[in-house]
Amino acid sequence: MLCYLFDWLKDLNFPGAQVFHYISFRAALAVVLSLFISMIFGRKIIGYLKKRQIGESVRDLGLEGQKEKAGTPTMGGFIIILSIVIPVLLLNRLENIYIILMLFTTLWLGMLGFIDDYIKVFKKNKEGLSPRMKMLGQVVLGLVVAVVMYFHPAAVIQDVGTLRSANVTSEDILKMSDGSANAVVKSPEQLEASAPATKAPPAVHSTKTTIPFVKNNEFDYAWFTRWMGDEKGTWSFLFYIPIVIFIIVAVSNGANLTDGLDGLAAGTSAPIAVGLAILAYVSGNAIFANYLNIMYIPNIGELVVFISALVGACIGFYWWNCYPAQVFMGDTGSLMLGGVIAVLCVIIRKELLIPLLCGVFLIQSLSVIMQVSYFKYTRKKYGEGRRILLMSPLHHHYQKKGLHEAKIVQRFVVVSIMLVVLTLITLKLR
Amino acid sequence: MLCYLFDWLKDLNFPGAQVFHYISFRAALAVVLSLFISMIFGRKIIGYLKKRQIGESVRDLGLEGQKEKAGTPTMGGFIIILSIVIPVLLLNRLENIYIILMLFTTLWLGMLGFIDDYIKVFKKNKEGLSPRMKMLGQVVLGLVVAVVMYFHPAAVIQDVGTLRSANVTSEDILKMSDGSANAVVKSPEQLEASAPATKAPPAVHSTKTTIPFVKNNEFDYAWFTRWMGDEKGTWSFLFYIPIVIFIIVAVSNGANLTDGLDGLAAGTSAPIAVGLAILAYVSGNAIFANYLNIMYIPNIGELVVFISALVGACIGFYWWNCYPAQVFMGDTGSLMLGGVIAVLCVIIRKELLIPLLCGVFLIQSLSVIMQVSYFKYTRKKYGEGRRILLMSPLHHHYQKKGLHEAKIVQRFVVVSIMLVVLTLITLKLR
Repeated sequence: MLCYLFDWLKDLNFPGAQVFHYISFRAALAVVLSLFISMIFGRKIIGYLKKRQIGESVRDLGLEGQKEKAGTPTMGGFIIILSIVIPVLLLNRLENIYIILMLFTTLWLGMLGFIDDYIKVFKKNKEGLSPRMKMLGQVVLGLVVAVVMYFHPAAVIQDVGTLRSANVTSEDILKMSDGSANAVVKSPEQLEASAPATKAPPAVHSTKTTIPFVKNNEFDYAWFTRWMGDEKGTWSFLFYIPIVIFIIVAVSNGANLTDGLDGLAAGTSAPIAVGLAILAYVSGNAIFANYLNIMYIPNIGELVVFISALVGACIGFYWWNCYPAQVFMGDTGSLMLGGVIAVLCVIIRKELLIPLLCGVFLIQSLSVIMQVSYFKYTRKKYGEGRRILLMSPLHHHYQKKGLHEAKIVQRFVVVSIMLVVLTLITLKLR
Repeated sequence: MLCYLFDWLKDLNFPGAQVFHYISFRAALAVVLSLFISMIFGRKIIGYLKKRQIGESVRDLGLEGQKEKAGTPTMGGFIIILSIVIPVLLLNRLENIYIILMLFTTLWLGMLGFIDDYIKVFKKNKEGLSPRMKMLGQVVLGLVVAVVMYFHPAAVIQDVGTLRSANVTSEDILKMSDGSANAVVKSPEQLEASAPATKAPPAVHSTKTTIPFVKNNEFDYAWFTRWMGDEKGTWSFLFYIPIVIFIIVAVSNGANLTDGLDGLAAGTSAPIAVGLAILAYVSGNAIFANYLNIMYIPNIGELVVFISALVGACIGFYWWNCYPAQVFMGDTGSLMLGGVIAVLCVIIRKELLIPLLCGVFLIQSLSVIMQVSYFKYTRKKYGEGRRILLMSPLHHHYQKKGLHEAKIVQRFVVVSIMLVVLTLITLKLR
């Protein structure tokens, strides 16, 4: 919201007011502010949660050190939500469609997770919300995101191949980028209007997404409908929408499963968020996008500010949540965190990088799926269920093997960092 | 060394051979290789050290969980040294003066630390090497580094102000940068020869260094000798050399002090190394250096490969060293790590950013200095020594206050990450 104040100050030629137009400056402010909220207010919120005795009734898994966890307050996800929402409301331009979508995602999944936690804690019903209801909430979110991304007039891209074939010079690209660096939201008309001036073709609606290793680093969901001939573009939403829903459900649940050791979900999410911030920044800057040969997405720069707040929130929460944890995020945090990451990937059109970028969530999910399927299969075949891992998700397997909880978490965080770096490298970030 | 093989392959027009010329590619390889060495061979080295019973005799500080540490092998610094030296020997151009300097630093301080550890472990002399000898070793290193940086013909810079005033166009900068991206080592003559072609003034010897917040982001040590008039440049080494020596001694000892909890030194050094890699990369790329308004340093690109190996080594060592530690780095690691970081800062001419970049080391050192001075002062004045902290260095203070070791380390790592980000932000990395 402060943007509007600074717009006004700038109109008055107030000195220094234009610094607020720089995305880098607002992103830095967002990190600082969200760290401040999570680290300073975090203590108060934890105190409040503890007083209200919002502790988690810990399942008895026969794991070492588990007893000590009883009494640790849960629903710490509130800290994360506040540390995202407050900086975003202050520092972002709220008419940006991507920001609206992200705020909706954060609050929607936060609410879903909160209901789940509320039932667990106050109704003393350990199951929480029924899996069916949780899934429904995620599917609705996926539907909203997919439809907005597919049909909203401002959700457009400009792909590098087109730019190049139109003989757009670096000067022109610089001009386009200035617009994005100053983060003036451009309507499709404005974008089109600026196109002739820069010789660049107008930004277009598209179901394209970035993938590594192939020519142009691009994949178009319209590929699935290529047998339709001329109408292939028209019907590609039939494939796009279910894929987006699947991604959001999968990543959200992956983060939820990962939230099983002190600091694990927050610690592995933080590097992912940093990776997303970098991807969003380069996608929103025509110079970098051109240099890296990835599509340029107008107006995406605003998202860098949101993601910066997310980075600060993850790190600030980790401060309290790292072993030995003083607070748990609960489903309020983990469902939301996974969902926010998934939606961000969809918006910056890097969703097919998720298996690598969110590799930790994937491995955790796979470990549960494999364990459960194998158990069911062997129970059917041999009459008794057998296990592949000592326990699933994977982090509990290592715990049963005798590794210290803190060591497992720190190694998972290292693995997450390496996966993020690998993701960036695959895109020729050099 | 592989560079030479690929040079030869390239001359034969072998397909793909030129990829090896890209610094980004070799840097990525260096990280992977050093991670591989430290994580795979690390286990074997730890096993060997344990068999030889190279355990640390832990001082009794009355801290919780301390007894468990007895028997953990020390001298793990070897793992770090190997994980740096092997990738560097394989992937770097070894005629580059900066690489020679860094290899010398690594091995020199590694040896100094090893002698210290050796005396502690095998001579059962808990004091180790005398502080006087340690200091002497660091001073000699500082002298070598300062003299090379001041007098070696290849240690030159090109500052952005000069480039701009010479009306150098972005095209020219691109040309210059290509040279550095391809990492062809240029002699001063070659640099000079290319200068007329690019209209750029030749790179020059200089005692300039980068500092934030001032015009041009630069500070020249010759400032100290400005009262000498025309000869100010000639005598500025009188100030440069002692400052470099002081920096190396201070940071090396800072890292040494920080090495007091499981994973603390490796965990706080890793983000510092990442920050240095970014700084070296942008300094060695004329486009970025110009964009960020910092001096362009020809031939510094090679250093990115070295620093990448350092990043991998820190992370790979952290894998074993994080709480609960399976190995300690010992002085072999900590003296070397601090010294390498200090010399890197000097070489990329960012040494005045150290108080911020290596803020964790600084705080640790200050905590010891304050504690000891206050103790001595009060003993003199009141007859009994008083303390400011419960114990120094700072990390032991928090431990005495009841925080868990793992939590202290993880929070210090978070603080180190934030300081690195802050350092990059001060340089307008946007």
